[in-house]
Amino acid sequence: MIVIGELINGTRKPIAAAIASRDVEYITSLACQQEAAGASYVDVNAGTGGDKEIDDLEWLVSIVQEVISVPLSLDSPNPRALQRALDIYKGPTPIINSITAEPDRIEALLPLVVSSGSSVIALCLSEKGMPSDAEDRINVGSGLVGQLIGAGIAADRIFIDPVVVPLGTDHRAGGWVLDAIAGIHAAFPECHLTGGLSNVSYGLPQRALLNRIFVAMAIAHGLDSAIIDPMDKAMMATAVAAEALAGRDEWCMNYLQAHRDGRLEI
Amino acid sequence: MIVIGELINGTRKPIAAAIASRDVEYITSLACQQEAAGASYVDVNAGTGGDKEIDDLEWLVSIVQEVISVPLSLDSPNPRALQRALDIYKGPTPIINSITAEPDRIEALLPLVVSSGSSVIALCLSEKGMPSDAEDRINVGSGLVGQLIGAGIAADRIFIDPVVVPLGTDHRAGGWVLDAIAGIHAAFPECHLTGGLSNVSYGLPQRALLNRIFVAMAIAHGLDSAIIDPMDKAMMATAVAAEALAGRDEWCMNYLQAHRDGRLEI
Repeated sequence: MIVIGELINGTRKPIAAAIASRDVEYITSLACQQEAAGASYVDVNAGTGGDKEIDDLEWLVSIVQEVISVPLSLDSPNPRALQRALDIYKGPTPIINSITAEPDRIEALLPLVVSSGSSVIALCLSEKGMPSDAEDRINVGSGLVGQLIGAGIAADRIFIDPVVVPLGTDHRAGGWVLDAIAGIHAAFPECHLTGGLSNVSYGLPQRALLNRIFVAMAIAHGLDSAIIDPMDKAMMATAVAAEALAGRDEWCMNYLQAHRDGRLEI
Repeated sequence: MIVIGELINGTRKPIAAAIASRDVEYITSLACQQEAAGASYVDVNAGTGGDKEIDDLEWLVSIVQEVISVPLSLDSPNPRALQRALDIYKGPTPIINSITAEPDRIEALLPLVVSSGSSVIALCLSEKGMPSDAEDRINVGSGLVGQLIGAGIAADRIFIDPVVVPLGTDHRAGGWVLDAIAGIHAAFPECHLTGGLSNVSYGLPQRALLNRIFVAMAIAHGLDSAIIDPMDKAMMATAVAAEALAGRDEWCMNYLQAHRDGRLEI
């Protein structure tokens, strides 16, 4: 699975404090730990706004890219912050996190995705707001993929995020996302499917259990990436097991290697 | 989920010994523990053959039905053993475990299922032997459901078992079963889907992890029953979480109740 390590996010209090105090040691250590735990990308989100975000994201990119060899996920809705980040970024092809189907955001971000050659996370969100059900997600996602491919972006550079909402607000929410993943995967088999899956458990007890079971179920429907905490050993073991059970691990080589490494003992 | 408790099975050594020595205490205690842990049915399998199985299964049924209030799953390929078991059985509607698409077995067992009004587990096995891939399972299963319904058995009395084979023998084995579950569920939404899912992990390390992740993935595709150990707390918690995430738990009532009961703490 393509794991996008989610921990360097300025909406989390310790990260906000580390960004405000320019704590290089704290941030870079978290980046290295995520890479060591198996992250394929390390997400950087300054969590601030306006011009402050531009400087903060630049600082995050400048220090994190020095200590890891995997690419970054540049996480901002602000085209100017993303442009500055791309200007100084020198690692392997990054992901821009994220574009949506909102016309303003398409207009502002699409040229940036095209010119930088980045991959991109495409959220199933339109100008009408949050998607309602599975069909709505499939429609919005399909339209967005069409626009991205039309602009010359290869399908395998697109990571579709079906937008995970809390099960606690509607008990059908998990099913909508699973059905959307299946529908989008069938329509665009070369695109990746990802998401911030832990939103599903917001407000419910035993969140870690729900989160990892949801990842397994999403993998069963075609998910091949997730924005998660790579240091969550039970989650990572679940993903390895689920990929093997889905038939995506020839001879179970990856599963057996994870066992030898002690990564399945949860 | 409709849990069929698998522990009273004479192919397991301690059970075989308890059957041989007519150890009422051991067997009935295991039956009660499975019911208390949430089994919807308690399976009884004598694990012996010939006339011995007829007597042994009769003994199992006679003692187990006295101590539980959930129905039994009468587990034998032998029509004479099943007939004797049905003759003395006095609990709620049982399941006959199992019929297959093999003509001899259909001929011997179908009249028994019809006359007894039992539910039935229908294995996707034909006279050609083990099913090869997903399509083969769907074809064999569909044919069998057609025969059962044609004989007057209501769809909701049929539990289709797609036949789970070890992932260690072919890394596509899990995917075949998942795709078969999805296909059969789409074709026969009123039938149940069940299986001895722990076969998937045979020969691989960390079997408990693989088994419970596979159950979650199967639930995502439409499985609503499983032949498992109801005393495996992590497995039972996984099933509760997966059913909520699949949208089958209105207001997450069952999930929240399981949390209050301490059943999700694994």
